[in-house]
Amino acid sequence: MTTIDLNADLGEGFGRWTLGDDEALLDVVTSANVACGFHAGDPESLLRVVGQAHRRGVVVGAHVSYRDLAGFGRRYLDASPAELVGDVAYQVGALDGLARAAGTAVRYVKPHGALYTTIARDDDRGAAHADAVVEAVLRVDPALAVVGLAGSAFLRRASAAGLVTVPEAFADRAYTASGELVPRREPGAVLHDPAEIRDRVLQLVETGRVTSVDGQEVEVDARTVCVHGDSPDAVEVARAVRTGLEEAGVALHSFVTVPGASA
Amino acid sequence: MTTIDLNADLGEGFGRWTLGDDEALLDVVTSANVACGFHAGDPESLLRVVGQAHRRGVVVGAHVSYRDLAGFGRRYLDASPAELVGDVAYQVGALDGLARAAGTAVRYVKPHGALYTTIARDDDRGAAHADAVVEAVLRVDPALAVVGLAGSAFLRRASAAGLVTVPEAFADRAYTASGELVPRREPGAVLHDPAEIRDRVLQLVETGRVTSVDGQEVEVDARTVCVHGDSPDAVEVARAVRTGLEEAGVALHSFVTVPGASA
Amino acid sequence: MTTIDLNADLGEGFGRWTLGDDEALLDVVTSANVACGFHAGDPESLLRVVGQAHRRGVVVGAHVSYRDLAGFGRRYLDASPAELVGDVAYQVGALDGLARAAGTAVRYVKPHGALYTTIARDDDRGAAHADAVVEAVLRVDPALAVVGLAGSAFLRRASAAGLVTVPEAFADRAYTASGELVPRREPGAVLHDPAEIRDRVLQLVETGRVTSVDGQEVEVDARTVCVHGDSPDAVEVARAVRTGLEEAGVALHSFVTVPGASA
Amino acid sequence: MTTIDLNADLGEGFGRWTLGDDEALLDVVTSANVACGFHAGDPESLLRVVGQAHRRGVVVGAHVSYRDLAGFGRRYLDASPAELVGDVAYQVGALDGLARAAGTAVRYVKPHGALYTTIARDDDRGAAHADAVVEAVLRVDPALAVVGLAGSAFLRRASAAGLVTVPEAFADRAYTASGELVPRREPGAVLHDPAEIRDRVLQLVETGRVTSVDGQEVEVDARTVCVHGDSPDAVEVARAVRTGLEEAGVALHSFVTVPGASA
Repeated sequence: MTTIDLNADLGEGFGRWTLGDDEALLDVVTSANVACGFHAGDPESLLRVVGQAHRRGVVVGAHVSYRDLAGFGRRYLDASPAELVGDVAYQVGALDGLARAAGTAVRYVKPHGALYTTIARDDDRGAAHADAVVEAVLRVDPALAVVGLAGSAFLRRASAAGLVTVPEAFADRAYTASGELVPRREPGAVLHDPAEIRDRVLQLVETGRVTSVDGQEVEVDARTVCVHGDSPDAVEVARAVRTGLEEAGVALHSFVTVPGASA
Repeated sequence: MTTIDLNADLGEGFGRWTLGDDEALLDVVTSANVACGFHAGDPESLLRVVGQAHRRGVVVGAHVSYRDLAGFGRRYLDASPAELVGDVAYQVGALDGLARAAGTAVRYVKPHGALYTTIARDDDRGAAHADAVVEAVLRVDPALAVVGLAGSAFLRRASAAGLVTVPEAFADRAYTASGELVPRREPGAVLHDPAEIRDRVLQLVETGRVTSVDGQEVEVDARTVCVHGDSPDAVEVARAVRTGLEEAGVALHSFVTVPGASA
Repeated sequence: MTTIDLNADLGEGFGRWTLGDDEALLDVVTSANVACGFHAGDPESLLRVVGQAHRRGVVVGAHVSYRDLAGFGRRYLDASPAELVGDVAYQVGALDGLARAAGTAVRYVKPHGALYTTIARDDDRGAAHADAVVEAVLRVDPALAVVGLAGSAFLRRASAAGLVTVPEAFADRAYTASGELVPRREPGAVLHDPAEIRDRVLQLVETGRVTSVDGQEVEVDARTVCVHGDSPDAVEVARAVRTGLEEAGVALHSFVTVPGASA
Repeated sequence: MTTIDLNADLGEGFGRWTLGDDEALLDVVTSANVACGFHAGDPESLLRVVGQAHRRGVVVGAHVSYRDLAGFGRRYLDASPAELVGDVAYQVGALDGLARAAGTAVRYVKPHGALYTTIARDDDRGAAHADAVVEAVLRVDPALAVVGLAGSAFLRRASAAGLVTVPEAFADRAYTASGELVPRREPGAVLHDPAEIRDRVLQLVETGRVTSVDGQEVEVDARTVCVHGDSPDAVEVARAVRTGLEEAGVALHSFVTVPGASA
């Protein structure tokens, strides 16, 4: 039977500010990428959301970022590799402290925003930051899985270093013919229709392919699908994807096996 | 044989800014209270200092603080108990992530600055924040010890809640007749002469008493002595204390028993 | 003819996070208390909102706060007077830089959150922080008005120091018999019914009195009324108040006379 | 008679952390680039240093930076132009608020660190950030001068937009044959010998040329020389430069004419 994991970005408020409906998304996903305070997430809220995830059997991952609260981690920051090793280890540990306080633990690491896209690329800058993330994860706990863009340089580097890698696809993003995401600022980069998004995810899960923005079939070998979008109807889209997969007989469960995790 | 632990505050720089001579102090102490980023401490530097501590067999503790980088954690902040539970769990976890990346782990928690003095007091505000610290430590890891002012309300509350408590004395601070620290802003609050400080610590360790600022004998039942001062001669003072204790035949070792810790 | 100013707190988002409907409130008020980055407000958003205020002829004030982004400035912070003088001058200047970039200028200063309530009180802590705010305003520009709670110690101190003071009332808050605000955490502290709030403001403007939470008539001599609430219907309440005042023939204009300001 | 301005970076501590000897450098320079809180500088300290500058007749400039306290503004941050316009206007205003509280005003703007080097370059990224800085300065106060690398794209763009531009040379940095600074990480990039540095500055001021790292004569048409270095002997170097210039009969005064400024 075909199997997939659904993940979403959670804990993305900060203090007085809230963002998204964490509890509604937790009812849909099997993995929660929880902010660690560098792009979003005050500790009190993060403690609450990891507890909510734990009670639903949703697996908790550390959504690590460049240190950039003002830019929500969406801006490239030219950190040195040594700084980045420290920043990632700090964030993974911080969220793990909160997770332990809620009776669970961090099981995987997913880079966020500009860090995610930087390390996906196969250039000098991407390689240096990818290696820093890999070093941090290996040093904190080599049993942690890492989530990254399917087919990306980051996953190749992480895998070569011995980490468990989890390739990811995006439910609501258009792909180029070479399997990269169409940049957000380009027209058609983000899909909005829940039914269309549901159908794309089904195609992806069942065939390992998506149709690119220029009509070609592209191989995307994903083990997890991010159903989180910035749109006001993020929850509706996520539910449509989940329902579509369940009706097609696809099994939804996490890519890690942990006691009490959703199956 | 009499036994004592010496501790110091470390990792108190931030980015471009350095403070104190961490490596020199690590050669003197048996326990390192390492900043966790809320009053000081960037992750890259903290990772370095926990590694340096680990290689010397110095035990690592989390020096948790109110969120106040601009005030170095020395200003009371009226956080809610729920915020403080989150803030403490976050900081302990963050430092533990770095400690694990350096091959060791956080073994104890010592509140810093205004949080330290607030929870030492037996009033409503102190009790609320003390209980929040205790709850955070219990939830993250009940095996973690907590360090606080000898005779303080914090230690009574932590002990009642089942935590291992470590009463602390200060090498270079004057005491009142009731066993409290003379506030820093008062004359004579801070001692500076290394020989005098050494002799006071010796008296304290051997008799369990110190002479108060008004000449009375005060009981101070301490298991660890903080040799960290803000003065330029902090390292000299710390060395004088250590040498004095060693020459008097006092055994210096940590209050926790961990593999690889100094003995 | 009776005259009143309506004010609201604006610019209270930060980066990715938005809060409230600034443009809708700018269509209602005559004065805009704009955040300065210490409790909320990233510069890009603040520049936008001061421009929007300027184009509507709404007067811009600096909504200064303790340095506490994580707590939205609602937590007391034990800053030294010298720190607070610097913090207030910095914030007033920062917003004035943005206001000048938008073609206008800061005309008044209103303390926010915990700073507002701390300096309203007639105790040592309140007096020290009130004097620091007064000193900062006097030094940056003695022509700036200050807004504070009607009848508060802050306004008395500011007035004695030579500043133009503007007493403020709150549209949606209950008062005690002694003219103080009922603390938010107490039942009945915050009113919600737009019609009731409109009628209270009308009573206040026309008679200089409000009915306290225990049914007594209390004198509240206000020159400005804060129509900003945290409720989802903040804009609806603000519009009800404005419409009620206009229908009663009350003139709405700012407490300062500036070129281009609303009249 | 030949004339030059000497400038240094000041106010670069933060809260508990100090950096450099501001008062000693203020006795040497004629212009003070004062941090604005984004890479360094707490308001209390900044208020002190602008007062010290004012009392010595040293002209105050705003040393604006990317928002990066952890990286001291030395890391490129991929801010959007709109964010950067806001960030620069905010910082200039903030320092001007403090300057006014000290009886003076900000007279010029000098970008710091990674922002300085980014906008010096003639590429897309540099142009976008240069234009954002120029727009911010024009909008806050078009009478403010801007300081930048002699011969840089930033100064050309600022000049074309109508700003007063002040080309800068560095006392202790090696130059390439094309007039750019040798990157810090390369050998020989930073000079250390006070006498050698003094002689280079004299050559520069008297001939408009420096000897490049590969022995060629390079034209550097500078109106101000930065005598600030990170080395422990920064003050000694600065004094040597000043003394050398005075003995050679070079007049030291600011590039702006302001009441009370050093002449």
